[in-house]
Amino acid sequence: MLPDLMIEPVVRAALLEDLGRAGDLTSQAIVPADVSARLAVVARKKGVVSGLSCARLAFQLLDPRIAFTARLADGDAVEPGAVMALVEGPARGMLSAERTALNLLCRLSGVATATADLVAAARGHKARICCTRKTTPGLRALEKQAVLDGGGLNHRFGLDDAVLIKDNHIAIAGGLRQAVTRVQRAVGHLVKIEVEVDTLEQLAELLELRVDAVLLDNMSPAMMREAVAMVNGRMAIEASGRISLETVPEIAATGVDLISSGWITHSAPILDIGLDALD
Amino acid sequence: MLPDLMIEPVVRAALLEDLGRAGDLTSQAIVPADVSARLAVVARKKGVVSGLSCARLAFQLLDPRIAFTARLADGDAVEPGAVMALVEGPARGMLSAERTALNLLCRLSGVATATADLVAAARGHKARICCTRKTTPGLRALEKQAVLDGGGLNHRFGLDDAVLIKDNHIAIAGGLRQAVTRVQRAVGHLVKIEVEVDTLEQLAELLELRVDAVLLDNMSPAMMREAVAMVNGRMAIEASGRISLETVPEIAATGVDLISSGWITHSAPILDIGLDALD
Amino acid sequence: MLPDLMIEPVVRAALLEDLGRAGDLTSQAIVPADVSARLAVVARKKGVVSGLSCARLAFQLLDPRIAFTARLADGDAVEPGAVMALVEGPARGMLSAERTALNLLCRLSGVATATADLVAAARGHKARICCTRKTTPGLRALEKQAVLDGGGLNHRFGLDDAVLIKDNHIAIAGGLRQAVTRVQRAVGHLVKIEVEVDTLEQLAELLELRVDAVLLDNMSPAMMREAVAMVNGRMAIEASGRISLETVPEIAATGVDLISSGWITHSAPILDIGLDALD
Amino acid sequence: MLPDLMIEPVVRAALLEDLGRAGDLTSQAIVPADVSARLAVVARKKGVVSGLSCARLAFQLLDPRIAFTARLADGDAVEPGAVMALVEGPARGMLSAERTALNLLCRLSGVATATADLVAAARGHKARICCTRKTTPGLRALEKQAVLDGGGLNHRFGLDDAVLIKDNHIAIAGGLRQAVTRVQRAVGHLVKIEVEVDTLEQLAELLELRVDAVLLDNMSPAMMREAVAMVNGRMAIEASGRISLETVPEIAATGVDLISSGWITHSAPILDIGLDALD
Amino acid sequence: MLPDLMIEPVVRAALLEDLGRAGDLTSQAIVPADVSARLAVVARKKGVVSGLSCARLAFQLLDPRIAFTARLADGDAVEPGAVMALVEGPARGMLSAERTALNLLCRLSGVATATADLVAAARGHKARICCTRKTTPGLRALEKQAVLDGGGLNHRFGLDDAVLIKDNHIAIAGGLRQAVTRVQRAVGHLVKIEVEVDTLEQLAELLELRVDAVLLDNMSPAMMREAVAMVNGRMAIEASGRISLETVPEIAATGVDLISSGWITHSAPILDIGLDALD
Amino acid sequence: MLPDLMIEPVVRAALLEDLGRAGDLTSQAIVPADVSARLAVVARKKGVVSGLSCARLAFQLLDPRIAFTARLADGDAVEPGAVMALVEGPARGMLSAERTALNLLCRLSGVATATADLVAAARGHKARICCTRKTTPGLRALEKQAVLDGGGLNHRFGLDDAVLIKDNHIAIAGGLRQAVTRVQRAVGHLVKIEVEVDTLEQLAELLELRVDAVLLDNMSPAMMREAVAMVNGRMAIEASGRISLETVPEIAATGVDLISSGWITHSAPILDIGLDALD
Repeated sequence: MLPDLMIEPVVRAALLEDLGRAGDLTSQAIVPADVSARLAVVARKKGVVSGLSCARLAFQLLDPRIAFTARLADGDAVEPGAVMALVEGPARGMLSAERTALNLLCRLSGVATATADLVAAARGHKARICCTRKTTPGLRALEKQAVLDGGGLNHRFGLDDAVLIKDNHIAIAGGLRQAVTRVQRAVGHLVKIEVEVDTLEQLAELLELRVDAVLLDNMSPAMMREAVAMVNGRMAIEASGRISLETVPEIAATGVDLISSGWITHSAPILDIGLDALD
Repeated sequence: MLPDLMIEPVVRAALLEDLGRAGDLTSQAIVPADVSARLAVVARKKGVVSGLSCARLAFQLLDPRIAFTARLADGDAVEPGAVMALVEGPARGMLSAERTALNLLCRLSGVATATADLVAAARGHKARICCTRKTTPGLRALEKQAVLDGGGLNHRFGLDDAVLIKDNHIAIAGGLRQAVTRVQRAVGHLVKIEVEVDTLEQLAELLELRVDAVLLDNMSPAMMREAVAMVNGRMAIEASGRISLETVPEIAATGVDLISSGWITHSAPILDIGLDALD
Repeated sequence: MLPDLMIEPVVRAALLEDLGRAGDLTSQAIVPADVSARLAVVARKKGVVSGLSCARLAFQLLDPRIAFTARLADGDAVEPGAVMALVEGPARGMLSAERTALNLLCRLSGVATATADLVAAARGHKARICCTRKTTPGLRALEKQAVLDGGGLNHRFGLDDAVLIKDNHIAIAGGLRQAVTRVQRAVGHLVKIEVEVDTLEQLAELLELRVDAVLLDNMSPAMMREAVAMVNGRMAIEASGRISLETVPEIAATGVDLISSGWITHSAPILDIGLDALD
Repeated sequence: MLPDLMIEPVVRAALLEDLGRAGDLTSQAIVPADVSARLAVVARKKGVVSGLSCARLAFQLLDPRIAFTARLADGDAVEPGAVMALVEGPARGMLSAERTALNLLCRLSGVATATADLVAAARGHKARICCTRKTTPGLRALEKQAVLDGGGLNHRFGLDDAVLIKDNHIAIAGGLRQAVTRVQRAVGHLVKIEVEVDTLEQLAELLELRVDAVLLDNMSPAMMREAVAMVNGRMAIEASGRISLETVPEIAATGVDLISSGWITHSAPILDIGLDALD
Repeated sequence: MLPDLMIEPVVRAALLEDLGRAGDLTSQAIVPADVSARLAVVARKKGVVSGLSCARLAFQLLDPRIAFTARLADGDAVEPGAVMALVEGPARGMLSAERTALNLLCRLSGVATATADLVAAARGHKARICCTRKTTPGLRALEKQAVLDGGGLNHRFGLDDAVLIKDNHIAIAGGLRQAVTRVQRAVGHLVKIEVEVDTLEQLAELLELRVDAVLLDNMSPAMMREAVAMVNGRMAIEASGRISLETVPEIAATGVDLISSGWITHSAPILDIGLDALD
Repeated sequence: MLPDLMIEPVVRAALLEDLGRAGDLTSQAIVPADVSARLAVVARKKGVVSGLSCARLAFQLLDPRIAFTARLADGDAVEPGAVMALVEGPARGMLSAERTALNLLCRLSGVATATADLVAAARGHKARICCTRKTTPGLRALEKQAVLDGGGLNHRFGLDDAVLIKDNHIAIAGGLRQAVTRVQRAVGHLVKIEVEVDTLEQLAELLELRVDAVLLDNMSPAMMREAVAMVNGRMAIEASGRISLETVPEIAATGVDLISSGWITHSAPILDIGLDALD
């Protein structure tokens, strides 16, 4: 769980984006300053929770007098109707922050839910579901946490915390070995190196070098199985390309270590969550 | 089309989010500074383009020597294989900016495509498709533009540029008329007022007041038709709730003016777009 | 009233602008950390209050131990000598924040006072006083609130929340009708459209189109009266140009709905407010 | 003249404040991207120019293809009708930037003009007009430059670049001598020290200490003359309080070195400047 | 002592620089949220303390529940083993903030210690040690405070709060007198003027003008002594160039007023300070 | 080499920190806008260059007309008198940017030089010199690049790109094995894990777990040699504690893979570099 210090700038910017220059015209005109309200954050669909801290901060940045009491934690599974949190305090600020809180909570829970669905599809195999860098600009840290909340693992967070050598790099370097060698000379001892391969010939070449992981790009399950046999535990194997709820079981069964999906961050539908008035 | 001045901060932040502290470890190690490349931005699926300025800025902020030549414009329809733009210049910067450029372009084109799909579903009726405030935090301005590129219309951009009175406001005000009256006293002559109603009784009450638009919340097509008859052109009618490709034709046929969808911004899948090396 | 979240960045920046790199050299050298003080914020002239939240935040951002107790509210009228607020706590921070607090409070109260003066000049007529976009760069949201505090109404907050078609737009479009039509096709159902006209011929042409408001630019009272008769309640009428305390009564008497003044934000003198030591 | 690096953040923020989230709705809808325009920046009143760099940057940040050709320089006097600059290029960006450019230029020229008026009133005496810290939050650097453009001198820029000991400091320190001594021990050799006095007794006490300047607070011209005699050139003498066009000549005639005015920054009316279409 | 308002942005940025996108991977994985710890901030070497507020803010920004109790104050001398502060609260946040807190505290205490060493070397003479603008980019305000904590004085804080005329300026102006005259016409009455001279001839020329200080650049002690005699108290004399612990005593003995050292900010080694677990 | 996009914010902030509110008082008053100059950036001492991009940006952000021509590249060794770059263009901006350019260049070259000195001391052994997180707040990315320029390797860039388990973590987890296990479950396949050990017993325990590196904390060379034998190539070995020019040869001779030094970033003296006027 990230400290508030890291989340607050995103939530603050989201609130200000919604408040614009004139603030909440409707609530300012209609809701007296002294009216209180009690609301429940309620799941409308089945899924996995992520982003409760964002929702809490949205309300409390708008008005520190609003109390946000989480009933569940990030990573918890919810059924429709489940109460995720209670929100109590001045009604005006609550209404002004509502959409921002939900926009973040629904989106992150959507990522967690999509991840959990793929995780479930891989159940029974050692393969872990992981994410990619195909995240929403500005929300990478939060979406990566949502992947963890959904039971997945994190791939690298950016261009700078691990090396991933792709076809273009290999072509420019003049070969896989040259590319790997250049990288090994440049990076420190705490940087892992992964290489993307399209063919088993490339994989064979790669096995002669010392890298930490291989990404099998768009291979058939049969090829993947062969790759797993070739590697034989000497490095982590990530399967990538055409990952979906339908294909995951077969891919997981090949024995790969990781199945990476861009879909869980770039195209996962939100989890429908609403605010219900209590009293 | 927004001026670059408004887009640049988002693109710059997205690049820096990906570059982190150490920059592109892989490309810095492998790609010599003087190697050039030519890439094509190519649609992999059918859809509508949005976000070309973002993609251009991603490459040019990373390295101003990179030339980005758009072959299409935002709002254009594409078939799989369509070349949307050419990117030429130093290869290192191109590889470092690639993911950021695509993350923005794919997402915004996804929004435009989803919008265009709903627009197509409403064809033959006067109903226009419009968006909501259920946008990605930090990207509202860009996603609203993508809705325009997809042929839709924009709903309000925030809490501050129009009034939308909802059930909570009405409850706190002690009635629809009280809520509307408070707002009318407070806002200037260039602010439109829309009111959400759940029942035709509420609509009847609303017709006695002077507001600009009504939002029919989760009404059946039959009720919508009745509402259209009651309003009889005296204000804009927006249908909301359970909007999907399947329901839009029937809703559009009721004669409403607008059909608003949160899905086109919060859950639209991206449009798959890639970068292909040329020669 | 805007939430602190929206005001704080302006106040924080103003304090840092004054503190520079070395902070308050004088108070740091002279005032021991444990000396307390009690000050009163006192009006030196007659006027209308605006910006109390800014003053409060200035003191509390500098030192959270400073208590700021408002005795009046934004929008209240004051006579010379009226105590607007009490400030109590550590003296050093109080002295460091004093100028920033007053700079904001005096300026915003100046805007509110100027607005109230024009409002008083229009008394007895339906015309409301409204502002323009001729605001101080960086302070638009606060100055627009000050206009409300002075009893005025807000014109649009920027280029993006309403349409105002001016002579240049009409010239480029090739005519008033073309300009209006282009806009009507582009904007959503929650955007109001106002058009500036110089002549009654233009107004007649405008009446055939459906827009929300007309701005009569620099017309004589006689022409305004004629315009009011022509429009006959079909849209809001804003009078603009040569607005001053002297001209407002005659203009208001013409029956226009709104009288807009740039002067209340760009040239209003401050309201003189000072800090007095107590006991 | 400040480098663009220092001005650009203010102008950029001002543009974004006006463009909001949706940009210039009117110009985007009406003005085709390929229409050019030529405009002249024209003084409507007599005054002194300041802020031409701000105006230039407003246009060029909005669209770098806009050419801004200054015909005059900051500090130049203008008569009504004087052309201050030409602006040529794409019309859409020009219209979007117009208000921001003028808001800055009119305000800063207003400050320069007010300063120049006071300077003229002091002509024939050695007294120089200077400003205070009563500036617009966020615009201090620009307004201080405008004071220079108007022929004035700058007082300190903030709490941190010079010491000004006021009555509150003296009271807390337990006396003028104690206050001065504490400061002299604390600050470096490049910090000047000025002390505010209300009476000639205080002035006499001050003359025994080594400070750089004295501020005569709200003294009558007769007292000022006496103070000038007492000081006899041993430090700079600044007159403050009730400074206006009417009082400056008499105050200047007392022989003080500086006359400081808050009015020139906090309440100066703008200089009316407009944009006229050419050909 | 600077208010937290001025320090917080630096500390916040330092924490975020260390936390990156994923936060503290190690502590998040290992340290349960409910584990508490008590740590002591302990000097490992002899020196002078500076930066306690920075350390406090580092812990409290990371987790407001962490209590930081200073046992010493900035400016205090410490021996190895001295406990500077106690830190108590949730262990996870404490470990995440530790390095940032120490990076700031060690560096600033290093500056204070180096300053104090030079101050000690000048003991017995009137010469004060002062700093330069050769500070760490981004940390100037904090390092200048550290110089004060070490018993030194501050030179100017930037290019804008005092004038320092150097050889290049003199060359461009066409002579020392011309340079000084241009400056005296331009700057206000609260700006001090210092001039750098290389020779006693220049000094003689300078004595005919009215400036506040002279910087003797790289002069021998013998020349300095002669300069002191020539100036005879008419302005402050700053010695600069080849300042070190070895040279300070001889330079101080010449009678100069100030000895300025870039080394104390640009090359001072840190003061070694650690965190020790308690019971 | 980092792209300018990543460096520019640091350089821009450094310039603005020096320019303050009033800009370069001295150069603005003395140097006419049309005077040009040619300067050489010259090493005054022997060392290794780093930060040329920072210096270039400092000049060009201040005035884009200044041409900066690098004669050497980051990582090059220099002797006293070596010309590193030429700077040509308007003199005023050059003088205003000089100190900022040098502050960055001297500091980063100091880091590179210190690194190179340690690298030289380890010559003949496989041990590589690497840095720590003991960097200057705000400058981590640049200082880490300087370490590379000096021939060193980078340790992790923050808390988030690799795991380093220290004594506190082990104590809280209840043992080394528990700590490692918790981390292995939490982090993805591209995150390396290093563990700090104080004793050979801990090392023996660690060898049963699968981690990527071990940090030998403050061990004697004899213990290090033993540790090297125990590990026998199964993971990277980093020596830490009491690293100096004197101790490095003996430590390198033990066969460790890495020697990490905080000194090269937190206490390295700057490399003396100056600007010389040409003809």
